[in-house]
This record gives sequence, structure tokens and C-alpha cells, in this order.
Amino acid sequence: MTYKIKSRIWIEVDDTTFLGEGRIRLLKSIKETKSLSKSARELGMSYKKAWNLIDSVNKKSKKPVVVKISGGSGGGGTTLTEHGFKLIEMYENINTNCWKYLDKQLKKYSLD
Amino acid sequence: MTYKIKSRIWIEVDDTTFLGEGRIRLLKSIKETKSLSKSARELGMSYKKAWNLIDSVNKKSKKPVVVKISGGSGGGGTTLTEHGFKLIEMYENINTNCWKYLDKQLKKYSLD
Repeated sequence: MTYKIKSRIWIEVDDTTFLGEGRIRLLKSIKETKSLSKSARELGMSYKKAWNLIDSVNKKSKKPVVVKISGGSGGGGTTLTEHGFKLIEMYENINTNCWKYLDKQLKKYSLD
Repeated sequence: MTYKIKSRIWIEVDDTTFLGEGRIRLLKSIKETKSLSKSARELGMSYKKAWNLIDSVNKKSKKPVVVKISGGSGGGGTTLTEHGFKLIEMYENINTNCWKYLDKQLKKYSLD
């Protein structure tokens, strides 16, 4: 038997979720699709649900995370700001560091 | 706005849960009540559900975690083994350390 330690992290502001797994997944998808409706479809949620999540992230952030782009050859869409990219990077870094830290913690105990 | 980072940890064995928040809560309750039925009631779950959780923990552990005690003035009951006490302590220590670690991690980023 091999024991593994797992974790899930999220960031709150005023006791409500600011960023968690689901929101990060949505942001990463928007980064790829550049379209909120495509991302909503990809993640199997309604457009309204996706919009509400993004609206919540934007409102709880000091700087905009997701913005609408209009015009251009593609006829506009949705994109992440520089701050949005940084938030994804931050979340993923902290997550990876946390997993490594927990692995080390578990090794201190002999479960086997 | 004050950002706080939160986490939830659990330990798996062979890709199934060995110990998580719910199981630890049940073990801690059994430690107090010394009765599986009282603990099940306290946590609002059926006796069968509580028994299945404990059975799963015992089967996935190298040493017994919860044992039945029979006889005595109280007419028997359920109690934690030394190993059970150690598992609760381990889980709580790792959890507390993880929170402290994540707080430090978040401080590296200026969300505010």
C-alpha cells in the first residue's frame, strides 16, 4: 500500500471564493479559446454560469482579469489581461509547491 | 480586500480515500463518545455509513485504527487504538503546517 497526500487550494476574499480550481480552469480555457461561450461549452456549463464566475473574479480582483475585445478580423471575443495570466501562474505555482511540501510532510510519518 | 488562502487535504491509498476531513471528524467524535452509533448521530449520518467509513479506514491502514471493546461497566463500545490517535495527530499537524506554508506562499504575490 502506498499512501499519497492530496490537496485542493482556493483563495477567498471577504469569506467568499475569489479563485479556485473551477475558476482557474475557466480562465485557462478562455486563454485558449478567447471566447466565453466556447469556454462555457467546453467546460459543460451555461453561458450565464461562466459569465457569473468571471464577473465574480473581476469584481473581487484589484485589477481586471478578463476583458471583452471588440472588432478585429475575428469579430471580437473575450481575453485575459496581463493580471489574469499572472493569477493563473500564481495559482499553479502555489499548487505545485503545496504538493511538494505535503509529500515531504507525509514522509515524516511512517504510515507503511 | 484581504485575500486568504485555504486548503483541504486528504490521504489516498491505491487511488481511494484513506483519510480526509469527514473521516477525521468521525474518528475524533468516536474518541469522545466511545460509541459508533452516538458518533453517527452526532455527525448526522446513518450507522451504516459511519460503519462503512470506519471499516474502510481500518482496511486501508497497516494497523487497526478503531476497535470494538466489549463488556465492562458501560457494556462495551468502540474506541480508537494508539495508531488511531496518532493518525488524528498527524492529519492535524500536516493541516496546520500546510495552512502556514500557504499563507507564506501567498504573501510572495501582491494581490492587493
